[in-house]
Amino acid sequence: MRLSQSVIATLKETPAEAQIASHRLMLRSGMVRQTSSGIYTWLPLGLKVLRKIAQIVREEQDRIGGQEVLMPTLQSADLWKQSGRYDAYGPEMLRIQDRHKRDLLYGPTNEEMITDLFGQVVKSYKELPQLFYQIQWKFRDEIRPRFGVMRGREFLMKDAYSFDASYGEARKTYQKMMLAYLRTFQRLGVRAIPMVADTGPIGGDLSHEFIILAPTGESGVFYDSLLEEKDWLQTAVDTTSSQDLHRFFDELTHHYAATDEKHDTQAWSLVPAERQREGRGIEVGHIFYFGQKYTQSMGVSVNGADGAPFFPEMGSYGIGISRLVGAIIEASHDENGIIWPDEVAPYKVVLLNLGNKDEASLALCEKIYAHLSELCLYDDRNERAGVKFADADLIGYPWQIVVGPKGAVKNTVELKRRSTGQKEEISVENLLARFSSNTLK
Amino acid sequence: MRLSQSVIATLKETPAEAQIASHRLMLRSGMVRQTSSGIYTWLPLGLKVLRKIAQIVREEQDRIGGQEVLMPTLQSADLWKQSGRYDAYGPEMLRIQDRHKRDLLYGPTNEEMITDLFGQVVKSYKELPQLFYQIQWKFRDEIRPRFGVMRGREFLMKDAYSFDASYGEARKTYQKMMLAYLRTFQRLGVRAIPMVADTGPIGGDLSHEFIILAPTGESGVFYDSLLEEKDWLQTAVDTTSSQDLHRFFDELTHHYAATDEKHDTQAWSLVPAERQREGRGIEVGHIFYFGQKYTQSMGVSVNGADGAPFFPEMGSYGIGISRLVGAIIEASHDENGIIWPDEVAPYKVVLLNLGNKDEASLALCEKIYAHLSELCLYDDRNERAGVKFADADLIGYPWQIVVGPKGAVKNTVELKRRSTGQKEEISVENLLARFSSNTLK
Repeated sequence: MRLSQSVIATLKETPAEAQIASHRLMLRSGMVRQTSSGIYTWLPLGLKVLRKIAQIVREEQDRIGGQEVLMPTLQSADLWKQSGRYDAYGPEMLRIQDRHKRDLLYGPTNEEMITDLFGQVVKSYKELPQLFYQIQWKFRDEIRPRFGVMRGREFLMKDAYSFDASYGEARKTYQKMMLAYLRTFQRLGVRAIPMVADTGPIGGDLSHEFIILAPTGESGVFYDSLLEEKDWLQTAVDTTSSQDLHRFFDELTHHYAATDEKHDTQAWSLVPAERQREGRGIEVGHIFYFGQKYTQSMGVSVNGADGAPFFPEMGSYGIGISRLVGAIIEASHDENGIIWPDEVAPYKVVLLNLGNKDEASLALCEKIYAHLSELCLYDDRNERAGVKFADADLIGYPWQIVVGPKGAVKNTVELKRRSTGQKEEISVENLLARFSSNTLK
Repeated sequence: MRLSQSVIATLKETPAEAQIASHRLMLRSGMVRQTSSGIYTWLPLGLKVLRKIAQIVREEQDRIGGQEVLMPTLQSADLWKQSGRYDAYGPEMLRIQDRHKRDLLYGPTNEEMITDLFGQVVKSYKELPQLFYQIQWKFRDEIRPRFGVMRGREFLMKDAYSFDASYGEARKTYQKMMLAYLRTFQRLGVRAIPMVADTGPIGGDLSHEFIILAPTGESGVFYDSLLEEKDWLQTAVDTTSSQDLHRFFDELTHHYAATDEKHDTQAWSLVPAERQREGRGIEVGHIFYFGQKYTQSMGVSVNGADGAPFFPEMGSYGIGISRLVGAIIEASHDENGIIWPDEVAPYKVVLLNLGNKDEASLALCEKIYAHLSELCLYDDRNERAGVKFADADLIGYPWQIVVGPKGAVKNTVELKRRSTGQKEEISVENLLARFSSNTLK
């Protein structure tokens, strides 16, 4: 994309309402604009990040056999009356009446709807296990929305739901999802550490939160440093083998990790001092096993091998996709702006032309842009170098290619890595070769 | 995907509430399930179609310089009070109050919201033109939802909005969009004919509907057959040239095309009899030019070259993405089921194993599936051949590969084209070569 042909929604002033870095930086860099309290429009750059995150989440859900569906945003209140949650949920649920005075609600979560769907299409134990997921907008009517997309009212979430024939099978699914989450967050360029959690109003007896480390996080966290060293993308776990899954899960949960709410000083003291890490973190995912809570309350059973009906065991598994945009920024920024991990950056590279009136620079930019156009935003504006540098740092593209008259005559450019600030002079041929072979690090 | 590992949501009985073919076939083939009146869950197969349609629409919007944004589903009523449409819109608008008693609504369209956004980020004529689009869920509280996703309440729409400096520029944008729409529908495997339309409550003086021909369509249509013969993907129009755009647009609109509402028998009589076509059709897109209606009523101006502020000229451009799923089926099915165009099929090919207990058949299926897994649904169920054939025809994959014990020993399979019913015996090597070279027609 050429910047001269796109909307520029950056802000010069820091918006007064933004209290935390990600909120400030998302507004200043033009990723989002607020339209009502806790409700945002996603502008082109922000939407690209949102969709890249969603796609990585989708690929990892598919990898463990998740079937993608899409449930509507509006739900009938009837299902929630069946499960007993309609009255229990409180004022965070946005309740709506349609023109025929029927009670609807804007789904804050979808356990009821998916359980009802499951009951319609699955009849026999032979069709188990089933794992469904969706990536859909939800609404929770927070009394005081704040921190931008981190605690908005309308938000994008990946929610998955599993149905298994037994506790043992449900546990395997839970373990598979744990691995999928670790892989997902690593691919997103952040570290998320699973921590034992309370199950809260959703019920059940097995639950983990996934917490991204960030100094501005909402919770204090205590964990064994071994948990952030593991490369989950290189960890071979045979997800068809119960034994392999158990081994992976036991090893993982054996290491200490807890938020301040669940912190146990005695267990903590057993972690070797050199591996004790304390910090703060942001919840970006939550997984629950809750057994037959919904299948039983909603009367959804399948026929067992012996012909007798039984209630399948369920779990649900959330990732806050829109929240992650903010959380990644909290974990990865400096005083000049955002530092996007390569995998989720709106563009991997920005091309800065400092020679707007220099023919050699213009020609070189066109050549580079023609090769990299898929990955690249071309800042072809008629602006001073300082403005272009500041915007590039603010928006946080992982790489900056700087083209100017001096280099252009020698066919060289400056390549800057946003995260380290490291710069090198490089020939255009080398530059293109490194991008096309994907050997940029 | 292996069918044994996915949910099977096909229905044996024809649902009583479904009056038209697409509604019946979408329910029977397990593309969607209704959750409330006019509100649907998209099951895995239907969602794949929906996402493929959305992606083609997206690519063609990008191609003419559209910038993708994503506005929230819920809007503040304030914006609609500014434009004067809050009271005018009537009971189809779903009105909502949040916990603080603030008036919200579920967006049925987004002219107000985008005009407000534009006003926030664009200040000068130098930043024009701007073209934004989004693919987002909308809600219209139809009094009697029917025909499945064709007239649902919660529906997915691509809506684009343009801002230009003059009537002449706005007209060029309108013409570009016309071309983008013709290309889009052709890529979707259907013919959509643009017809002059009333502008309706949205206002303005230039408007076309895009109508897909289908015998069950809601409107009668009359058109010159030249309009369905043109290959828009091969038509070179330089969209940077006003002249080229005008020529394209004049040639196109010169040919007669009208719905029964706008039918002009005198103009019709001038079309040569051998080119007169009458039929029925379904509206799947609508484009409007409406000038300064919203910029003026909402007081959104930009600074002109002379320093004086002016109100930009606007247009809006919709495509009913979820409606298209139904409309394509109306245009392309037979008594056995859906016939998906290759480009939007949930899977391009289904692999039918008739030798569930035959080792040679199983091995051959695994070999084929390993090569085609991205394109292919593998019906590995332990079911009779008749059930597999019927489901394959019902779901409407463009190609069927039939593997059985007789062919397997010779390393051959049967390849069937769903649209024509044509079958051929083919060696596995040839089959794979044809799929990998994409030379299947």
